[in-house]
Amino acid sequence: MSETTKYLLDESKMPRFWYNIAADLPRPAPPVLHPGTHQPVGPDDLAPLFPMELIMQEVSTEREVPIPEPVREIFRLWRPSPLFRARRLEKALGTPAKIYYKYEGVSPAGSHKPNTAVPQAWYNQQAGIKKIATETGAGQWGSSLAFAGALFGIDVTVFQVRVSFDQKPYRRALMETYGARCIASPSNETNCGRAILAKTPDHPGSLGIAISEAVEVAATNDDTKYALGSVLNHVLMHQTIIGQEAMLQLEMAGDDPDVVVGCTGGGSNFAGIAFPFIGQQLRGGGKTKQRRIVAVEPAACPSLTRGQYAYDFGDTAHMTPLTKMHTLGSTFTPPGFHAGGLRYHGMAPLVSHLKELGLIEATAYHQSQCFQAGVQFARAEGIVPAPEANHAVLGAIQEAMRCKREGKSEVILFNLCGHGHFDMSAYSSYAAGKLVDVPYDEAELAMALAGLPSVAA
Amino acid sequence: MSETTKYLLDESKMPRFWYNIAADLPRPAPPVLHPGTHQPVGPDDLAPLFPMELIMQEVSTEREVPIPEPVREIFRLWRPSPLFRARRLEKALGTPAKIYYKYEGVSPAGSHKPNTAVPQAWYNQQAGIKKIATETGAGQWGSSLAFAGALFGIDVTVFQVRVSFDQKPYRRALMETYGARCIASPSNETNCGRAILAKTPDHPGSLGIAISEAVEVAATNDDTKYALGSVLNHVLMHQTIIGQEAMLQLEMAGDDPDVVVGCTGGGSNFAGIAFPFIGQQLRGGGKTKQRRIVAVEPAACPSLTRGQYAYDFGDTAHMTPLTKMHTLGSTFTPPGFHAGGLRYHGMAPLVSHLKELGLIEATAYHQSQCFQAGVQFARAEGIVPAPEANHAVLGAIQEAMRCKREGKSEVILFNLCGHGHFDMSAYSSYAAGKLVDVPYDEAELAMALAGLPSVAA
Repeated sequence: MSETTKYLLDESKMPRFWYNIAADLPRPAPPVLHPGTHQPVGPDDLAPLFPMELIMQEVSTEREVPIPEPVREIFRLWRPSPLFRARRLEKALGTPAKIYYKYEGVSPAGSHKPNTAVPQAWYNQQAGIKKIATETGAGQWGSSLAFAGALFGIDVTVFQVRVSFDQKPYRRALMETYGARCIASPSNETNCGRAILAKTPDHPGSLGIAISEAVEVAATNDDTKYALGSVLNHVLMHQTIIGQEAMLQLEMAGDDPDVVVGCTGGGSNFAGIAFPFIGQQLRGGGKTKQRRIVAVEPAACPSLTRGQYAYDFGDTAHMTPLTKMHTLGSTFTPPGFHAGGLRYHGMAPLVSHLKELGLIEATAYHQSQCFQAGVQFARAEGIVPAPEANHAVLGAIQEAMRCKREGKSEVILFNLCGHGHFDMSAYSSYAAGKLVDVPYDEAELAMALAGLPSVAA
Repeated sequence: MSETTKYLLDESKMPRFWYNIAADLPRPAPPVLHPGTHQPVGPDDLAPLFPMELIMQEVSTEREVPIPEPVREIFRLWRPSPLFRARRLEKALGTPAKIYYKYEGVSPAGSHKPNTAVPQAWYNQQAGIKKIATETGAGQWGSSLAFAGALFGIDVTVFQVRVSFDQKPYRRALMETYGARCIASPSNETNCGRAILAKTPDHPGSLGIAISEAVEVAATNDDTKYALGSVLNHVLMHQTIIGQEAMLQLEMAGDDPDVVVGCTGGGSNFAGIAFPFIGQQLRGGGKTKQRRIVAVEPAACPSLTRGQYAYDFGDTAHMTPLTKMHTLGSTFTPPGFHAGGLRYHGMAPLVSHLKELGLIEATAYHQSQCFQAGVQFARAEGIVPAPEANHAVLGAIQEAMRCKREGKSEVILFNLCGHGHFDMSAYSSYAAGKLVDVPYDEAELAMALAGLPSVAA
């Protein structure tokens, strides 16, 4: 029997459409509201921030949105990405389950983020935009947009959370190699940054603050737009190429997943692997296989499992519209942990909506368990996962061990959203026994939730 | 016209044989000599260090050596690797040349090294070996053998050059994640290490010293064998899967290279891309296209362009046999530069022999030029090359610019042997203008060459 099994799609089968789950929802997600009027926002309200094509995608209810050919051309650098059967891991676990993983670490930036960075840069270029501002935490998104910007001749400015800017210079170096400008946030370049620094000169920054700075730059400069790497509908839709490919690859393998697992920060890689499968179920009524869809989040930033489903701001300075989502409160600062890509107070509105509809489950794990799973995976399968991806690895292992206890040979699919080559210092800490679990502050969470904006139903 | 062009081989076309250039040489390479007797060594002399299957490959003159199926199974994790047409780079250079690159950074360790690490670990496992000792500089080889060891249940001990051990902890973390033991060299674990530390307690180490330590451990422990990541005939042969795949992929593209470019440290990735093409020429006599084969080495460690073709030791403590090669002298310590994988005093005997036969050319560049080329490549093609690979990138760009001057649309193929995600601090230094060229010490080179062992012809 073959020990490694890779399922590669022919390039001609790379999806030509993104899948838009809005077309199949039993009821639409709550509208996005203007923060002043609390009335639903229209496309014009978003025009200062995004090119109109992306705004139309944000509000679209078309099931299939064509992927432009120049975007597919760039995707061919690494797509279709491989699907693997984790036979050696199955053996190590002694499970009767079949474990498959979709591997997105093959992109030039090492994660799934270029799946949306490339189309976002392209739509901006088509609209004549020459500059984009964005934010990044650990740097996966910032480096991916820098990569896409280099290919389409767009100047990219990235506000990077200061603690990451200082402590993790490698993804910053990657952004700069691609020609992007990287600024520690909070910075002196924006009103919002200056106000924070005036109060707290050594502020470590947060994703919420960095978003405020990037949005301010875009809102106050006619030649600059804004780009977000997760959370928004169109960003999640761009990632559905992952799940669509996985579906075709599992057909090649002759399998259909019982459980689909992804890690969640803002929600985009999870949506990417899961939405096409959820959509199939929604369209099939009772006739399709009923799958469990499991979101795995960090216990230190548990928006889906401990947050409130409420209208909230996406940023700290309250410059964004209000969206209904699972949130820990826009003033909540998650403790420092290594999966920087999962350190966000809110959850994508679409993912939150699906949770409310009972279409997905959520679970939360501490980072030390996740790294243990990641090391076990690396030694069995050879690929070292990013700290974010370790949450999905652990989620899949937990399901496989349940199958072992129950004597079931279920099919488990998870998304390995990136490699860990930029995160080896975290693995060093883990190996040295220095990686500790960092609980959030319950009092701070209570205060942040108490401060949620009050929006009439 | 398509902007990105990727040529992917079907898995069924992954080569089933390694190509052994020894079968096609117009005259054989000079024999390896015993350091005491100066007589040719036989397989038994090497038995303490290597399993017999690898020794037989080392001395084989069979043109095709079968790749064991369990090795091909592991290769499927990342092989066949992609071949790309660098259309955006061609456009940026304004060259009429066609540039193709074979990309080996898709392996779990991020470089070409697993192509030989996996078979070496497998042959050791088949011979009942439970432990392997090896050395590594920057860590590409050590992490690749650690990866292979994890898959085949072999304990791997890596002696890592101390300056890299201290300054570049990320590949060490990768080795440890795979379960290998990593020791700073010179160490107190060997006679040779202790002798050096007694004289120079803060010795920064060198690849030559680390080889001595690993060989000593293997030679003095019955249960332990030794593995080398480059230089030896069987190691170069394992890498020929690169060139064989590239040949099939260029056929798909309808092209045949006029120039083949690779970077050279010990010589293995260069041999991997070049030997199958050289072999085709040798077998074809005058009937095959006459290609130029260009080896690019660091100006700070220029064994092919400035070394002497002479018998020398592979290590500093003179524990290895004597091989005829281009060498800077086994006591020569190359200055510190970022392409740690190219920092070796000698060149593979087979590559050296081909140079003497006039079948390959060699050129040397300083690292600042190489990084400039690497940044240009990253912004055009999206992939950030390893510092070692930047030498090949620059070599290819120089050829493309010559084609522009001469108005020729030649076909250029180069090997992009690894990604730079572990080397972003070097890119940071380059971006900050802090990366300087480090010439070697002419007096030290003269002394090292004067100290070459005298071997009767």
